[in-house]
Amino acid sequence: MNAEETLIAAVEKASVENGVAEKDVSKEDIVTPWDVSSTSAKGVDYMKLIEKFGCRTMTNDLVERLEKLTGAKPHVFLRRGMYFAHRDLTVILDRFEQKKPFYLYTGRGASAGSLHLGHLIPFIFTKYLQDLFDVPLVIQLTDDEKFLWKGMTVEQAKKMAMENMKDIIAVGFDPEKTFIFNDFDYMCPPFYENIVKIWKTVTNNQARAIFGYSGEDPIGKSAFPAVECAPCFSSSFPHIFGTKKDIPCLIPCAIDQDPYFRMTRDVAPRLKYSKPSLIFNTFLPALQGAQTKMSSSDPNSCIFISDTANQIKNKINKYAFSGGQATIEEHQKIGGNCDVDIAYQFLTYFLEDDDELKHIHEEYTAGRMLTGELKQRAIKEVQRVVATISERRKSVTDQTVEEFRRIRKLKYDF
Amino acid sequence: MNAEETLIAAVEKASVENGVAEKDVSKEDIVTPWDVSSTSAKGVDYMKLIEKFGCRTMTNDLVERLEKLTGAKPHVFLRRGMYFAHRDLTVILDRFEQKKPFYLYTGRGASAGSLHLGHLIPFIFTKYLQDLFDVPLVIQLTDDEKFLWKGMTVEQAKKMAMENMKDIIAVGFDPEKTFIFNDFDYMCPPFYENIVKIWKTVTNNQARAIFGYSGEDPIGKSAFPAVECAPCFSSSFPHIFGTKKDIPCLIPCAIDQDPYFRMTRDVAPRLKYSKPSLIFNTFLPALQGAQTKMSSSDPNSCIFISDTANQIKNKINKYAFSGGQATIEEHQKIGGNCDVDIAYQFLTYFLEDDDELKHIHEEYTAGRMLTGELKQRAIKEVQRVVATISERRKSVTDQTVEEFRRIRKLKYDF
Repeated sequence: MNAEETLIAAVEKASVENGVAEKDVSKEDIVTPWDVSSTSAKGVDYMKLIEKFGCRTMTNDLVERLEKLTGAKPHVFLRRGMYFAHRDLTVILDRFEQKKPFYLYTGRGASAGSLHLGHLIPFIFTKYLQDLFDVPLVIQLTDDEKFLWKGMTVEQAKKMAMENMKDIIAVGFDPEKTFIFNDFDYMCPPFYENIVKIWKTVTNNQARAIFGYSGEDPIGKSAFPAVECAPCFSSSFPHIFGTKKDIPCLIPCAIDQDPYFRMTRDVAPRLKYSKPSLIFNTFLPALQGAQTKMSSSDPNSCIFISDTANQIKNKINKYAFSGGQATIEEHQKIGGNCDVDIAYQFLTYFLEDDDELKHIHEEYTAGRMLTGELKQRAIKEVQRVVATISERRKSVTDQTVEEFRRIRKLKYDF
Repeated sequence: MNAEETLIAAVEKASVENGVAEKDVSKEDIVTPWDVSSTSAKGVDYMKLIEKFGCRTMTNDLVERLEKLTGAKPHVFLRRGMYFAHRDLTVILDRFEQKKPFYLYTGRGASAGSLHLGHLIPFIFTKYLQDLFDVPLVIQLTDDEKFLWKGMTVEQAKKMAMENMKDIIAVGFDPEKTFIFNDFDYMCPPFYENIVKIWKTVTNNQARAIFGYSGEDPIGKSAFPAVECAPCFSSSFPHIFGTKKDIPCLIPCAIDQDPYFRMTRDVAPRLKYSKPSLIFNTFLPALQGAQTKMSSSDPNSCIFISDTANQIKNKINKYAFSGGQATIEEHQKIGGNCDVDIAYQFLTYFLEDDDELKHIHEEYTAGRMLTGELKQRAIKEVQRVVATISERRKSVTDQTVEEFRRIRKLKYDF
């Protein structure tokens, strides 16, 4: 099989395993909480996703409004469209303008080992939003989900959650404003009450339509989504929000998590809760190309935050898919293709300087900049981002984790 | 429609509402956690149920062994076959003989108002077992189940659980040996961990086969059974059992709850837990006849523990279905039918004296005892049982409930 056939076969296999109806097993992009892949070297067609999922495009007007409200230059991810879509972001901006409370909610399904850069995108952005808005943040580690979906013990799932928390904390969250929890250890009456309320409001047919479960799947797969939805409701955290039950949240997350929050938004008004707002990021492409996202299951597709500067250099040099031409002569004649070049894509995520990025795009497209040089520049930026986090990671201990996990008031007064 | 047609229509309606396959909607008895009814005036055919559910008949040998082991005369309910079936009761008797620990687990779906005598049968018997075996007892109030199945708020479901707890406590449980909890307030990490483990082990198809849910049912109905199963595992209660995770339980319950525990027994070995043992009681018939059990939804079918002596007298006189004949002459000639006579059935449950019961059976069957006299005797016994409980009920306050609900060690050392 050629590369495309291999990919389609993989996509079909994944789709069948996840019970996705046959009509979806075409050359369409696959974006579910369990699989993300595209047959295009440019990656997922996000505009099609917006249409399919029914969310809104992140417009320049919105980014400008954010800039005006906060007086701060928008984050690279906002300036360059990595946060490409949203649901009801205006509701949150209105509340910010009116000085009304809201909170941030994000999370992750704990997996083995060190986090990679793709995992960190939502966390880097969430930290930016926390600093920008100065609001409480809750971070959920769905160790129960991992236990249900993967062949592991509860202890293994919890251990992974603990280790992942350390990497997340290393992004730089403020312990006075951040509550991190794993489901297995946080489960408590107010949280469970919201879970049961969601269970009562969604039918098996609806859950199946949203998540594509089959009869052969364990019941936990139908029961679990409510556990990811419940943190959207502030009453799940009385230690933070006291008796205030009507505080809405903004969820920065990758677009593949949208099914959970579409469900939550359907359910919220029926429970007399606020709908969560969302802001969605694109997927950081795998080194091998934008057809798939970075995935821990293929370590050579990822830059891990535990990678040394040298490992980062070698991985990018060896694996980063190039949009350059086969020979220098050809490259100088035809020019490189930034749209599919992974080194260039990394620079769009991590190079702060808009002018320099524009310059690189021009030079590479014109064939004046060669692949080696482009990779050099990307390596430098990726090393910088990873170094900041991995340096902070060194001082994160079990005790630090306990500080973030402790049931306590945050510094806000609700 | 005549009475039988009305009943069949009601059974069909109930079965359709609960998604039971059409083939079950015959004149067969209906015994599910949500419906119990029979087309026979003698009530449910329990021997058929034993065959259908695959449990074991409670034999005289077993009752005798219990008597020998404990040195106490077996309870009326055991002597007269109200506890007619079991699963692995011998495992528990072996442990009792070997002085190995086990515990009792029973529960109830909280409903509005006062409990009736039908509700109290398992609790009266559980108290007897607690006194007999001197083991810890956990009592679950499934307020989450009631919230999911009925049109009520969480607050209403919790309130009902609290009120029901008072009636249950009035049966005479020992606060040093008994932990009573409602799911909404007890939900905690060790309990949740067992729930998720069960969720992982049972497929949607299996749950549907056991409980008959449909696609239109809320997901909570598929998620809930694990919540009733989890208390079968001692690790759900670390405050009672410490780190001991292998202590089995005996569940005294009505046979309609068996689906939950069949599921638990399937799951237990895969989770490396002990299977729960069970001992099943028959249903206390409604006043109107043994085709249905006492049900709060028809107050005239029940004797409530809040009923006064006079109310009890009037209800039995007015509603208790009689196995006597239409006229005194006919009755004296043909004799009464104890099998369908509700006053007589009540005496089998509540009259201690075996000889007197035998005598009444003879006299009534021979037509020498008239319906009025039989009812008089039944009224006296029911009044006695209710008076004992309602007298105790007077001293049960919110504080008493808190004593039983408090997370604490019981007087046992594990």
